[in-house]
Amino acid sequence: MSQAHAGDGPRLRDLSEEELLARIFPHFAQGEDVLVPPGDDAAVVRAASGSVVATTDTMVLGHDWRDEWSAPAEVGAKLVTQNVADLAAMGARPTGLLVTLAAHRDLPESWAVEFARGVGSQAERYAVSVVGGDLSGAPDGVVMVSITALGDLEGRDPVLRSGARVGDVLAVHGSLGRSGAGWWLLEQGEGLEPGTGASRLVRDHLVPTTDVGAGRDAAAAGATAMMDVSDGLVRDAGRIARASGVRIDLGRAGLLDVVAGLAASIPLDVAWQQVLTGGEEHSLIATFPPGAAAVSPDEAGPVRWRPIGRVVEADDALPRVTLDGVAVQGQGFDHFAG
Amino acid sequence: MSQAHAGDGPRLRDLSEEELLARIFPHFAQGEDVLVPPGDDAAVVRAASGSVVATTDTMVLGHDWRDEWSAPAEVGAKLVTQNVADLAAMGARPTGLLVTLAAHRDLPESWAVEFARGVGSQAERYAVSVVGGDLSGAPDGVVMVSITALGDLEGRDPVLRSGARVGDVLAVHGSLGRSGAGWWLLEQGEGLEPGTGASRLVRDHLVPTTDVGAGRDAAAAGATAMMDVSDGLVRDAGRIARASGVRIDLGRAGLLDVVAGLAASIPLDVAWQQVLTGGEEHSLIATFPPGAAAVSPDEAGPVRWRPIGRVVEADDALPRVTLDGVAVQGQGFDHFAG
Repeated sequence: MSQAHAGDGPRLRDLSEEELLARIFPHFAQGEDVLVPPGDDAAVVRAASGSVVATTDTMVLGHDWRDEWSAPAEVGAKLVTQNVADLAAMGARPTGLLVTLAAHRDLPESWAVEFARGVGSQAERYAVSVVGGDLSGAPDGVVMVSITALGDLEGRDPVLRSGARVGDVLAVHGSLGRSGAGWWLLEQGEGLEPGTGASRLVRDHLVPTTDVGAGRDAAAAGATAMMDVSDGLVRDAGRIARASGVRIDLGRAGLLDVVAGLAASIPLDVAWQQVLTGGEEHSLIATFPPGAAAVSPDEAGPVRWRPIGRVVEADDALPRVTLDGVAVQGQGFDHFAG
Repeated sequence: MSQAHAGDGPRLRDLSEEELLARIFPHFAQGEDVLVPPGDDAAVVRAASGSVVATTDTMVLGHDWRDEWSAPAEVGAKLVTQNVADLAAMGARPTGLLVTLAAHRDLPESWAVEFARGVGSQAERYAVSVVGGDLSGAPDGVVMVSITALGDLEGRDPVLRSGARVGDVLAVHGSLGRSGAGWWLLEQGEGLEPGTGASRLVRDHLVPTTDVGAGRDAAAAGATAMMDVSDGLVRDAGRIARASGVRIDLGRAGLLDVVAGLAASIPLDVAWQQVLTGGEEHSLIATFPPGAAAVSPDEAGPVRWRPIGRVVEADDALPRVTLDGVAVQGQGFDHFAG
């Protein structure tokens, strides 16, 4: 049993499934996309435009979070964002979440209820309802949480990874490297003093957010490819490049002030590393045709996309993603690699 | 590390995520409900009737299966059926599955690929496509698999748990107690000789099936409430009774030949116990208005529903489910209870 789960108070084994659900459900408000709410064999969710967008993402204690760093509500909030970001990256609006908790019998009931509170409040941020889920036992010390997110395209075409064309601009909406920098600070035992720049980086690691409206607006503005940054800029841009049969050349110039912002709290070399390879950021990257208003520096539109690279011809002698024309060290995160 | 996962051959840690996915994907044929197949940030699935039915179910090694009993393809097939049965119980047709595998680094690659094969072939049985999923690391010895199933109501109203009315007939489509009997046999170390009645019970425990067409036809025939038998007849009928504000009185007479069929392979008292409380059967139970053709013994329709009980007034002095008017011993399965 995990040390972090020692202590007083009731455990999952002390409650029936129905009792636990009765304490969890109040955190899940039901919005108007929900036609049949949780509690039946399955939920029914509106899919007004005749299709549903679906994605799923899992977090495992000790792999994806540590109880010393993350409160259960933060785990829940992060899991919601991870999933909603995948919908946003298609240009979709989230309509429903299914939430799974697989946990050992000695998990405090309070962990489960706080996790649900975090899920519920972050779901509210994205105006999406928790419509179902599953509770399952697990071996000693194991806590695994998973969400499947459903979304609606509202009549737009989905923005795939495969649509980037030579000549397009790569742009980012939101931050880069902040979550990775926060992780690095936690690893150093830093960033714990509230109110500091470092503590805000830690906060962005523990509770990253994404911007559904930005994804939707990018889709409407003609983005040719889009992803959220979940495994690092280089790795995720590489996925767009591979799916589109192109190369993406990042420009140091466009990243300089992002790096400089981080370098106030962490060493400069770490700042570069985290901007290029730090994961769990959940900002959006997208490619746009040249001259697109959304990425024009002079245009004051509702959506601000910062140009950070160009889509160029693939080159067998180079990796899919380069920085000012040369290979980048380090590629990001792999789940099973040593 | 689990003994059952010892042995030769490559492990998950020896492959990149992309390499593993490349070996899994060929098992997942893409049908015509799939608008954007796996490989992007999210899948897009047809939802022609303007809504989507969604459910999720998880299995954990050591809790929901044992490697000594279940081959990985059987785990995959059972997980598909569990989820599809929840859709069938709403009267929905499955349109897409999202599959998650969270596993320790030493899991043989062959386990993951065989699991995927089992998922894929059972998905084909139900004419549904695997449209997405997630791979995640997990602590030593842990293997957790999860599916979210999406479905379409094709314009029908969903059949909820809450619609049973006093005077309705409770009927079952498919078997009762066979999966539980198979589990009991495995516990005794029996049922392993191929070609016997006992081995067929074991088979029905390891690879239960459900009937999507029966759920759809019941919905069209006016079923007032429906569930699949996942936690046992008494427990699941109790959920209908509670949601509907009624009592369900099972009749021994209607169950006698089901029990007799099982009693050829297991003791009579165990047969009764498994028919009443055995889970993971995934047959459908439904309530119908009196005289419904689907449950008339003289009617030779396409769907055969066997009457096994009556919906009666709730009674504070009695539980939600009774057998010939009296309480039933044993209630079924709870995930965390000791």
